[in-house]
Amino acid sequence: MSIIRLLLAYDGTDFHGWARQPRARTVQGVIEEALAPMMGGTAPRLSVAGRTDTGVHAFGQVASFEASRTLEPAHVLRALNARLAPEVVVRAARRAPEGFDARHSATGRTYRYRIGTAGSPDPFTARYVWHRPARTAIGAMRRAATLLVGEHDFASFCRRPEPPAGTVRRVERIAVSRAGDEVRVTASANAFCHQMVRSLVGTLVRVGDGRVDAEAITDILAAGDRSLASPIAPPHGLTLVAVRYGGPAYPSL
Amino acid sequence: MSIIRLLLAYDGTDFHGWARQPRARTVQGVIEEALAPMMGGTAPRLSVAGRTDTGVHAFGQVASFEASRTLEPAHVLRALNARLAPEVVVRAARRAPEGFDARHSATGRTYRYRIGTAGSPDPFTARYVWHRPARTAIGAMRRAATLLVGEHDFASFCRRPEPPAGTVRRVERIAVSRAGDEVRVTASANAFCHQMVRSLVGTLVRVGDGRVDAEAITDILAAGDRSLASPIAPPHGLTLVAVRYGGPAYPSL
Repeated sequence: MSIIRLLLAYDGTDFHGWARQPRARTVQGVIEEALAPMMGGTAPRLSVAGRTDTGVHAFGQVASFEASRTLEPAHVLRALNARLAPEVVVRAARRAPEGFDARHSATGRTYRYRIGTAGSPDPFTARYVWHRPARTAIGAMRRAATLLVGEHDFASFCRRPEPPAGTVRRVERIAVSRAGDEVRVTASANAFCHQMVRSLVGTLVRVGDGRVDAEAITDILAAGDRSLASPIAPPHGLTLVAVRYGGPAYPSL
Repeated sequence: MSIIRLLLAYDGTDFHGWARQPRARTVQGVIEEALAPMMGGTAPRLSVAGRTDTGVHAFGQVASFEASRTLEPAHVLRALNARLAPEVVVRAARRAPEGFDARHSATGRTYRYRIGTAGSPDPFTARYVWHRPARTAIGAMRRAATLLVGEHDFASFCRRPEPPAGTVRRVERIAVSRAGDEVRVTASANAFCHQMVRSLVGTLVRVGDGRVDAEAITDILAAGDRSLASPIAPPHGLTLVAVRYGGPAYPSL
């Protein structure tokens, strides 16, 4: 057996998220189903770097699975794209070193959240951008973002406590930028707890509105109380853009 | 009565084109239907600058209709967007001078055609870009495009002869540019006959492939024979980006 690693992009609009579910159309489900005929009829179990929620997109998702040595990554790429593109696209496929696991080997994830601030939405990006026409103070959002960087207990921004993993995460960078009528929040961390990016963005936009003080972020974080954070941002503005694999054994695809 | 002018953007993917049809969902149909309640229950007849085909998009489409003096353009904008956005978006609405007609007053139209040349399609632009993985010689496409500029009989690139209007058009500019993995063809003319941009693009990409000589364009044009042109490009890569209204009486929105 050997391990095959996939670099994936997908439009999450019409999926019930990544994770396989019995009666819902999910990204994992359609990929595993499409792989089955190449594996003697038995679908493999995919490991994935970021278990995206319903409506969340990916540009640089990474998944891996065990397959026989005779299954060529180039064949997997062509066969999956023939069946699933352009909704789900395999951007690259290659053999990975023994022991590689897309989820457990990952050392960093980067998500981008797009907010459209123009008066009217743009039909061509509406599936990927949260339309929120409002004057937004980028400077205040940046000050607040700075306070989130570092290793903290993010319980205030996690949907539910995750007993084995806990809610401590190391945020490496949160950049807030403007591109035309869009405000973009790009966040990198070793990992994110459930709905953490959407929760951070939900609070940051209120900072941008002036409804929450930038400096209050420190108190919200320290309280470890989800009720202090603002409502979470909707899923469709969020995209997993990249996954990092540290160490020389797992170079980036 | 007065005339209201609308600047429209729409994703044409799920429409059977602009023009109203009895049993098909069209852009004109949904807008007229949404306007009816504001006009005492009687839908107006929209005039439009570009009658886009099934699957063709618009960013700067212009439409106009007659309404009573009491109907405020700002109200029309809000009401239409509340009902139709983000699939169809009214970017601006204003009163137009007497005699203005979105179709007959227009003096120029600009369309853009997007071609994706990367190995795999991009899920986020797949609805708006023709995925055509191939090495494309931009220089040859540009030389051919230059030969199309000017007033010519475009019968070789028109779906059907249009007896009253004929097939003579004045092409002002055809720009071929590369943006990352995309090749874009931007064409401006006083007007285009039916499927003319897609037909020009279909031939230009064959020039880019080396299957048709750039200089052969002159002969294809002169022959006035549609069978000499290459197959037309698919509709989803095409977007009407802007309409021009010449003269001081009809400033651009």
